[in-house]
Amino acid sequence: MTDTALALADLDFDRYDHVRPIRWTGEALELLDQRVLPFTVVHESCRSSDEVAAAIRALVVRGAPAIGIAAAWGVVLAARALPADHATDAAAASALLEPALQHLNAARPTAVNLMWALARMRRVLATAGADWRAALEREAQAIEREDLAANRRMGALGAALIAPGSGVLTHCNTGSLATAGFGTALGVIRAGVAAGRVARVFATETRPWNQGARLTVWELGQDGIDATLIADSAAAHLMKTGQVQWVVVGADRICANGDTANKIGTYPLAIAARHHGLKVMVVAPSSTVDMATASGDRIEIEERDPAELLSFRGKRVVAEGVRAWNPVFDVTPHALIDAIVTERGVVERPDAGRMRALFG
Amino acid sequence: MTDTALALADLDFDRYDHVRPIRWTGEALELLDQRVLPFTVVHESCRSSDEVAAAIRALVVRGAPAIGIAAAWGVVLAARALPADHATDAAAASALLEPALQHLNAARPTAVNLMWALARMRRVLATAGADWRAALEREAQAIEREDLAANRRMGALGAALIAPGSGVLTHCNTGSLATAGFGTALGVIRAGVAAGRVARVFATETRPWNQGARLTVWELGQDGIDATLIADSAAAHLMKTGQVQWVVVGADRICANGDTANKIGTYPLAIAARHHGLKVMVVAPSSTVDMATASGDRIEIEERDPAELLSFRGKRVVAEGVRAWNPVFDVTPHALIDAIVTERGVVERPDAGRMRALFG
Repeated sequence: MTDTALALADLDFDRYDHVRPIRWTGEALELLDQRVLPFTVVHESCRSSDEVAAAIRALVVRGAPAIGIAAAWGVVLAARALPADHATDAAAASALLEPALQHLNAARPTAVNLMWALARMRRVLATAGADWRAALEREAQAIEREDLAANRRMGALGAALIAPGSGVLTHCNTGSLATAGFGTALGVIRAGVAAGRVARVFATETRPWNQGARLTVWELGQDGIDATLIADSAAAHLMKTGQVQWVVVGADRICANGDTANKIGTYPLAIAARHHGLKVMVVAPSSTVDMATASGDRIEIEERDPAELLSFRGKRVVAEGVRAWNPVFDVTPHALIDAIVTERGVVERPDAGRMRALFG
Repeated sequence: MTDTALALADLDFDRYDHVRPIRWTGEALELLDQRVLPFTVVHESCRSSDEVAAAIRALVVRGAPAIGIAAAWGVVLAARALPADHATDAAAASALLEPALQHLNAARPTAVNLMWALARMRRVLATAGADWRAALEREAQAIEREDLAANRRMGALGAALIAPGSGVLTHCNTGSLATAGFGTALGVIRAGVAAGRVARVFATETRPWNQGARLTVWELGQDGIDATLIADSAAAHLMKTGQVQWVVVGADRICANGDTANKIGTYPLAIAARHHGLKVMVVAPSSTVDMATASGDRIEIEERDPAELLSFRGKRVVAEGVRAWNPVFDVTPHALIDAIVTERGVVERPDAGRMRALFG
């Protein structure tokens, strides 16, 4: 490929983007409840930052960028809950809002976007004048709007790397549902389909939470994009058939050397892709890049309740007394990644030097 | 390890082997219904070869060796259904039983043990005299008895390869449930636990049919062996933690060059094991070895109903209209296998020459 980005104007973005997970009503944050998709399409209304934190923890909203956006709106809700006479200026508000900010920050440990979005909200508090309430709301809106724009830009940059007629395999859900809209890895796939470059889309089930089975294939279906669902463990066999040329995934955190934390199961896909001579693309907004973390072995890997493996929809499926281990992220070392695509640009064959050149 | 096998006499086999999937009552074949384990322990009684074929196809009984044993008893049932005056000698019986043999043979396409067991039954018919009915029953009993003995022998041979204090990861169910008893890969793990060599056991969920989650950890629990359940896609991350030294799996067919067809997801485990410098052991009776098939690319890979991915316990979990691809086996090339363990002996670093030396 010699084109560094597909022309944004050539892509019919709206045609391939019908789902929105986050809606600010002016009074409340409405979150599309991703726990009950695809059969029940219902929004949960959050009227306090505690409700937003609980919704993030319970996976009502998920996906690193979407979590950051939701948390920013959570700060707006916390600000609204402050009595006017308790926070007459931004400095007072900053102190009073800090517990809510920390509570939101603790909702999920691995995604760096959450911290990043909250840091932006803190900076607004540190610099705003008397209109700090309005400034917070503008900042949340900006975080959301910029995310959608970044995704469209990444879609154009990432699709340009894919040769026409290619098959792609994606993991987890990195789509409109995981972002303000369009998606990260799924945005590249959307742009690739729109540009006639992606001819076949495969999606893994993504155990244990089934984001691929429940969300990704549903979301693509909303836009008229056909995708074939496979078991996570069928990916290597699929690669051997030659139907796939790229593995395209999102990221929860990208380290200074390009090591990438993403949904559990990304790392074995990258190992298998390398084994078959296929390419791996990580797509994430620059807010996912954490230049303060040198490499992947420094990343805390979230372990969730083993019940996610032991039960299905509240019904026990594994014998009583059985132990399970449920890490929900893994780290793909940069040596197994062919391209990291952000809205700021593409880092091919990422390493510490090439990452520093773009993000240093 | 310098010991080529652990002393069989030193292993307390009965302590680690409480489950039996197949029971011949003298009148009927009782199969432990593996579709409803672990919460419902119920036997399905088969009184005709058609019922046995249906039970094999429906996965009431599963696991390559168990399928072969069940099919052998299916032939006995077919023989009993022949009116005495329709089959006065073995040659006449052979012709009359051929449709039942072919029907049983077609129940599952990938496992070679099925064909192998039926070939043994055919040979009996070809050589038996007037007592061909009793000869068939003796042969089915022999197939079952020999399988249990082979598994115990493989357990001793395989466990000898494992250094004391090791962690093992297994896939699918290769245990008592998949065999006449004791198991193949799970037999090695049982023997390894009994001999104090296996210190940690991890079992994959094994999508889409959840043999690991429903059967393996339950079966090990019946014998007091602790195992930790993981998502299939968490295996690479587990390997990175250093808790596992061996991947120990069964086989549905082993080719003349050592290429091995086994449950979907075996191949990516082998790729990831090699990436981490860990070892891969395939454990299967010699009846699984198919010297007539030169290499893995000649193996027909069974694809089962995509509904296995789209529904859970009869309840739809994926949006309507979504396509799924459900290959249930993959092929692990011999270059990724460190040892093939059979009751006849061990082939280390298998290739066509070393396979021929043991099986030629």
